[in-house]
Amino acid sequence: MAEAIRLFGEGERLEDAVARLGVKGAGLDAMARLGLPVPPGFTIPIDECERALARDARDLEPDLVARIDDALARLEARVGRRFGDAEAPLLVSVRSGAAISMPGMLETILDVGLTRESLEGLAAMHGGDRVFALDSYRRLLQMFGHVALGISGSELEAIVEEERLLAAGPERVAKPLGEEALERVVDRLEQRLRRHDGVGLPMDPRAQLHAAVGAVFRSWNSPRAVRYRKSERIVDARGTACTIQAMVFGNRDARGGSGVLITRHPVSGERRPYGEYLSRAQGEDVVAGLRTPEPLCVAEAVPGRESTTLERSEPEAFAELVRLAEILEAHFGDVQEIEFTLEDGKPYLLQTRPAKRSARAAVKIAVDLVREGRLSVEAALLRVDAASLERLLRPRVESPGVLAARGIVPAAKGLPASPGAAIGEIVFDAEAAIRRAAEGREVILVRRETSPEDVHGMKAAEGIVTAGGGLTSHAAVVARGLGKPSLVGCAALEVDPTAREARVPATGLVLREGDLVTVDGTSGALYVGALPVVAASTLPELDTLLGWADERRRLRVRANADNGRQVALARSLGAEGVGLCRIEPMFFTEERLPEIRSVLLAEDLEDTEDALERLETSLARDLAHLFRAAEGSPVAVRLLDWPLHELMPSAPEEREALARSLGLSPARLERKIAKLREVNPMMGHRGVRVAITHPGLYRAQIRAILRGAHEAGHPLPAEILVPMVSAEGEMRHLRRMAAEEAASLEPLFGGRPSYRLGALIELPRACLVAEAIAAESDFFSFGTNDLTQTTLGFSRDDAGGFLKAYGIDLGILDGDPFSRLDRRGVGRLLSIATREARQSKPDLVIAMCGEHGGEPTSIDECERLGLDYVSCAPHRIPAARLAAAQAAIAQRTTSRPSP
Amino acid sequence: MAEAIRLFGEGERLEDAVARLGVKGAGLDAMARLGLPVPPGFTIPIDECERALARDARDLEPDLVARIDDALARLEARVGRRFGDAEAPLLVSVRSGAAISMPGMLETILDVGLTRESLEGLAAMHGGDRVFALDSYRRLLQMFGHVALGISGSELEAIVEEERLLAAGPERVAKPLGEEALERVVDRLEQRLRRHDGVGLPMDPRAQLHAAVGAVFRSWNSPRAVRYRKSERIVDARGTACTIQAMVFGNRDARGGSGVLITRHPVSGERRPYGEYLSRAQGEDVVAGLRTPEPLCVAEAVPGRESTTLERSEPEAFAELVRLAEILEAHFGDVQEIEFTLEDGKPYLLQTRPAKRSARAAVKIAVDLVREGRLSVEAALLRVDAASLERLLRPRVESPGVLAARGIVPAAKGLPASPGAAIGEIVFDAEAAIRRAAEGREVILVRRETSPEDVHGMKAAEGIVTAGGGLTSHAAVVARGLGKPSLVGCAALEVDPTAREARVPATGLVLREGDLVTVDGTSGALYVGALPVVAASTLPELDTLLGWADERRRLRVRANADNGRQVALARSLGAEGVGLCRIEPMFFTEERLPEIRSVLLAEDLEDTEDALERLETSLARDLAHLFRAAEGSPVAVRLLDWPLHELMPSAPEEREALARSLGLSPARLERKIAKLREVNPMMGHRGVRVAITHPGLYRAQIRAILRGAHEAGHPLPAEILVPMVSAEGEMRHLRRMAAEEAASLEPLFGGRPSYRLGALIELPRACLVAEAIAAESDFFSFGTNDLTQTTLGFSRDDAGGFLKAYGIDLGILDGDPFSRLDRRGVGRLLSIATREARQSKPDLVIAMCGEHGGEPTSIDECERLGLDYVSCAPHRIPAARLAAAQAAIAQRTTSRPSP
Repeated sequence: MAEAIRLFGEGERLEDAVARLGVKGAGLDAMARLGLPVPPGFTIPIDECERALARDARDLEPDLVARIDDALARLEARVGRRFGDAEAPLLVSVRSGAAISMPGMLETILDVGLTRESLEGLAAMHGGDRVFALDSYRRLLQMFGHVALGISGSELEAIVEEERLLAAGPERVAKPLGEEALERVVDRLEQRLRRHDGVGLPMDPRAQLHAAVGAVFRSWNSPRAVRYRKSERIVDARGTACTIQAMVFGNRDARGGSGVLITRHPVSGERRPYGEYLSRAQGEDVVAGLRTPEPLCVAEAVPGRESTTLERSEPEAFAELVRLAEILEAHFGDVQEIEFTLEDGKPYLLQTRPAKRSARAAVKIAVDLVREGRLSVEAALLRVDAASLERLLRPRVESPGVLAARGIVPAAKGLPASPGAAIGEIVFDAEAAIRRAAEGREVILVRRETSPEDVHGMKAAEGIVTAGGGLTSHAAVVARGLGKPSLVGCAALEVDPTAREARVPATGLVLREGDLVTVDGTSGALYVGALPVVAASTLPELDTLLGWADERRRLRVRANADNGRQVALARSLGAEGVGLCRIEPMFFTEERLPEIRSVLLAEDLEDTEDALERLETSLARDLAHLFRAAEGSPVAVRLLDWPLHELMPSAPEEREALARSLGLSPARLERKIAKLREVNPMMGHRGVRVAITHPGLYRAQIRAILRGAHEAGHPLPAEILVPMVSAEGEMRHLRRMAAEEAASLEPLFGGRPSYRLGALIELPRACLVAEAIAAESDFFSFGTNDLTQTTLGFSRDDAGGFLKAYGIDLGILDGDPFSRLDRRGVGRLLSIATREARQSKPDLVIAMCGEHGGEPTSIDECERLGLDYVSCAPHRIPAARLAAAQAAIAQRTTSRPSP
Repeated sequence: MAEAIRLFGEGERLEDAVARLGVKGAGLDAMARLGLPVPPGFTIPIDECERALARDARDLEPDLVARIDDALARLEARVGRRFGDAEAPLLVSVRSGAAISMPGMLETILDVGLTRESLEGLAAMHGGDRVFALDSYRRLLQMFGHVALGISGSELEAIVEEERLLAAGPERVAKPLGEEALERVVDRLEQRLRRHDGVGLPMDPRAQLHAAVGAVFRSWNSPRAVRYRKSERIVDARGTACTIQAMVFGNRDARGGSGVLITRHPVSGERRPYGEYLSRAQGEDVVAGLRTPEPLCVAEAVPGRESTTLERSEPEAFAELVRLAEILEAHFGDVQEIEFTLEDGKPYLLQTRPAKRSARAAVKIAVDLVREGRLSVEAALLRVDAASLERLLRPRVESPGVLAARGIVPAAKGLPASPGAAIGEIVFDAEAAIRRAAEGREVILVRRETSPEDVHGMKAAEGIVTAGGGLTSHAAVVARGLGKPSLVGCAALEVDPTAREARVPATGLVLREGDLVTVDGTSGALYVGALPVVAASTLPELDTLLGWADERRRLRVRANADNGRQVALARSLGAEGVGLCRIEPMFFTEERLPEIRSVLLAEDLEDTEDALERLETSLARDLAHLFRAAEGSPVAVRLLDWPLHELMPSAPEEREALARSLGLSPARLERKIAKLREVNPMMGHRGVRVAITHPGLYRAQIRAILRGAHEAGHPLPAEILVPMVSAEGEMRHLRRMAAEEAASLEPLFGGRPSYRLGALIELPRACLVAEAIAAESDFFSFGTNDLTQTTLGFSRDDAGGFLKAYGIDLGILDGDPFSRLDRRGVGRLLSIATREARQSKPDLVIAMCGEHGGEPTSIDECERLGLDYVSCAPHRIPAARLAAAQAAIAQRTTSRPSP
């Protein structure tokens, strides 16, 4: 016989209690050890569930049955009542409880052990309350029928409901079922259960218990539980524990009830208890939602209804609960969410676990706990979900009232579907959103309604507006999921995607593609133009937390920022420089596009010199602005990386104008543009490849960068990033070009401009020959977006059709490789490249500037690889700072070997 | 002082003579050792050139000068005349000679040592022949002026030409220059040279010599030499040797002359001497092409002009030459190309090297030499360029005469630009050629004329036809380079790419895209329809050679073949099975396309079941045919791999018909097709990804393969290749699918069908997680085409714009990575994948089926990696067999460690 099953608090404390007993079992065990009022019971460990599921048989193993019976005997002794006793029966709850919380996904059966025979004993024990005893039996029948026998829960509920309707009478006043009605209900439920398998609810209490345990184990593999684990990426969990605990009854009378207490406010993080309470109820009644719970505390009460709070109705019990909660929070060093039941005005604790909390509360609580001496700084840093900070920091606009006072009124109003403010250019379809966003612009997607095909466009957009739909429409749900400000149901807006405009007929307003608007997803208003945005409501604890993070992280954090405004925002959020400035948006101005087009389409190379000079001068101006905004912090500018075709006009009239200005026939221009079109533009004539075939265009960019830095009085060498490098010969070529341009600027500057030339490592081959490329490079930056595309052969634009099946449904990949770094594939290439590049240059600076640079698990990988900095979007800077600290702490404590 | 410079034949024989002394220097040294009549001289080794070029100074190092002078003193002693002696001067030739032959790329100066002073002595030595002496001086002035001083050669030649015109007189009869004319010429040349640098030709013979040596060294880095080395991929050569040799004079009188003798016929390989001879000439006159040489042997003589051959005019000298040549061939064990000069009827040998030869001759000679006992089998195998066999084996059609007798006449005639016969469907542009070829079809590209943008299409085509152009047109040159049958200047043809047709107005014939034609590039004829093709003229020696290769190779060779006809051809060429059958062409039939389209576009999945069943049955029929053609050899069939969009119709009328047949509105169909379109189709929803999202379509294919093999009575397990694998979960998924289909066929077959499921490894990630994929796979096949695309991020379709700059002009890559495997990038991934896959499955069969599978250097890589087989196009099978043997021999002898 294997190890005996231990009652709560029995034996030595387990180091790995949560892993072995689940969150619930471990919590109960801990509470018992603390001497808190926990109904006695025991937990069947998770590995028993695993073994049972592997056996794939309906009955439990005899060995396990024997150990359960043994534990039960000790429980009987502790309580002083016997399981199945006709006079004073011990009833138990049988509950699931995994090592990772899966709320509502697994099953529970209460009142196990009750039979027709012991029903009367139960009534007698409770002052002859037959209604209570019958209702308990009714609950057991319903739960056992559904959970253990698999009968539809709603079918069983319908039987009860019929009697409730009868009891309500013609006046339809909801009333508790009387004794007679309950007799009828339990008769009918018994019959229904018996009809299922010829047995129904076993009248042997032990058989009830064993069946209940088996059912709880099996609930681990129910379709909805499997789905939940997939969607939450719970991959290495193996089963649920099963807790068997003496029943306490919150449903007996007015001095009983069930509730939840959270030790601090879960939204604001304030230090005061918060909770809900339902009198005359078991915990399950709260979950079922048939009755609405009341607030626990007066502070939360609806004005004028304070009397209904537990704090007022049972002040002593409330005070006791708060005292117990304090003990638990201090013990666990974290905010607890505590389930309790009151019986006869006495509180019993049924579960405690770390409370779910808002991003805001998480930060405040972590910092407060450190200040209260309940938590170490490092533990506090590890406790906040770094990714959540992005949401927390989403900027907003002033409220409509404040704005109205300044004469700013919305162009249209809708429902506030996802909070925060977003500013951008209007686009009317997902493709345009993706395209413009790829150009580094910020866009607002405006649709009548959205559908799954729009999701890629929604991801690319800063904000989303729909004319139709409500708060649960596709647009609203997806926008909230993405954390994008959104307003929906904006009925005043007529959206005409064909004409590429949206109209507000009431005011005659016409919004066209490219027009700048501000979306206030907090109030549900749409404004024309870019409104001043204020940072999210300040949270001083965040600064404290990030300050601690900065002291502990090794990785530096820079921003991907393409203009002075973004750089300034990034600096205010703690960016230590610019890791990636994309030069493309600087080309997308009315003034410069014609220049670059004329260069790319020129019949005669000599014609292009003037255009290149003009281009250089105006680029230098923008770049100087950017360098100034960096305030002396380092700036890396990436040379032109887009397929050339994307720089060509698509509208026919624009093409005609271009043909005229170039002195080409329209047909000739079409042919020239057609030649730029590519079958697989992602792998086409891009980046350094164009630098080699069209050097003039790249020399102009290099000069513009050097001039911009010089004009801004930038104190550091300008960093120039060469995209799409696949061979050291490319870097050698670019070094020569850059050296020549730098030399030619010497007379103008009165000294040789200093710069550093870096390779953007975004192709598998670049990783494989990194040692040679490093020898020709001053620094490396991993472009993990493109590297993910080529390593996996997934085009970001085209993978929508199968990525869901891959990442979630079939678990072929561990999530979306474009948001979490694919460690085994892409990560291995990074590891090869880092190791070998540093073989040729031990002090080579290596960074990551793909979107993974702002994602915590990917930042962890960067720490493991020993990179020097990550670079991410400005909004993600705080998250990256925190994640970098978490990675550094994790590295120090576990120090895993690199793969 | 470094090592002394050795006279020819002096000291010990050098093991690495060619590497140190160049081909010429080593040949002269060897001939001297054999006691053959070689004018004495010495060779300055290659490393001296390397050192001199590194010094980058015009003058030679004093140390080298001293050693040259020392060697010259020994040469004087050997000859018995003094360099610069006024009475009987020793003159020398100063010639370049690299370790790898670079014909005509490097420089030579003859008659070095001659001065105004010694000119009279030279005349006296040769019976007072002042004309001879002056002409020699004239040669020296011209060559020194051009090579050492860098004066334009044509400017100097113009001076001579003026006098020649004068001498020719009004009748314009070409005459040798007389004494007076030569006096004027040398005066003018001397002045011109002096004007160049104030010195001109030094009158110190030693200064002449040193300047000549320096000039020869510098010629290594002349632009044309650098270009040549790039284009020939000569990468690790470091410089040229310089040979200084006593002059013999073929230009003195009628008993003198210069020529070349090749020991066997360089085109047919027959064992008889072959050569050319120019009397009264130096070797340089032959090269200059001012006079046309005569055949050496009577057998080659123009009928009726036998008397002019050396064999007839100087029979003794001829016999002596043949005797010397025999000695040399026997000594070197290879056909020699020997340069010689006759002076006074006595032959002197000036150079010997392995003769260039046709592919046909190479094979015959190699086999003959083995039979004659002059060469080992292994050496013979290494001596034939494997890639050349493809050309040799190109099939042909019967001659126009034979065909006319059968009533088959050409539809149009043109110039025979590149020999061989090709059959295929007409396409009118490069894109269509690439697209259809990617579909596994054979196409003939028909253009008015071609330009560099067409080259990718030409590569994809089987044959090329142009209406314009001559034998040196772009189309002709490129077609010959590619070894593609081609006819150009087909003036009868009117090509209309817009209408996608070509017309022959004279006959009213209209050829449309997709029409089948036969191109006879040997006779220059275009035929309508597919003519019977006969194998290239048989060469029994080839069978012998390949038989030897088969005995010595370890790698097996299979064919990429998509239908029974191709399989039969491949078998006849020695294929040991089918390594890659693409299933796509089987879908491209009028009967099946509608079925697959209806499956892909179905509104309701149940509707597709009938279509899938019909598809399965007809695919099984084709596959049975293929399996039968394999005659019991193994067959691997790849599941559908193309982007789905490529299976949709493009013509509007076809789309309308499709919409009708599916019961969809045309607009709805357009939307559905538009959804299949991808931004980067190469990295889109393809291969196994579609298998996972559209399992029905892939289950049908798996069933069809199993049924085809079963119907054909195929004795081996059918091999099923899964394309685009990136994760082991994909293979696990497909294994399950295949197992289910196999089980379901069991009742039908009366037994479980056996099969093996292989992963097509064509993505970087697949290589990086190969160990895990191997655990789920029965075999691996590397798809190096796609792997090259993703590893380098080069789309094959789009890389044309920069690949030339990369592969050749700038040397960034070592050639085109799509024809030669990129060893450092792609090769490294193969190495990782092979090593790690075999860690999980030591006996895993691993193959390569990309186009590299037929390319010798890539096959060498496969041997090094220990792969099991390569698979290539049928035409390349013999080349692959030979290359595999060469790789095995090379591995045994050098056994390099893998990187």
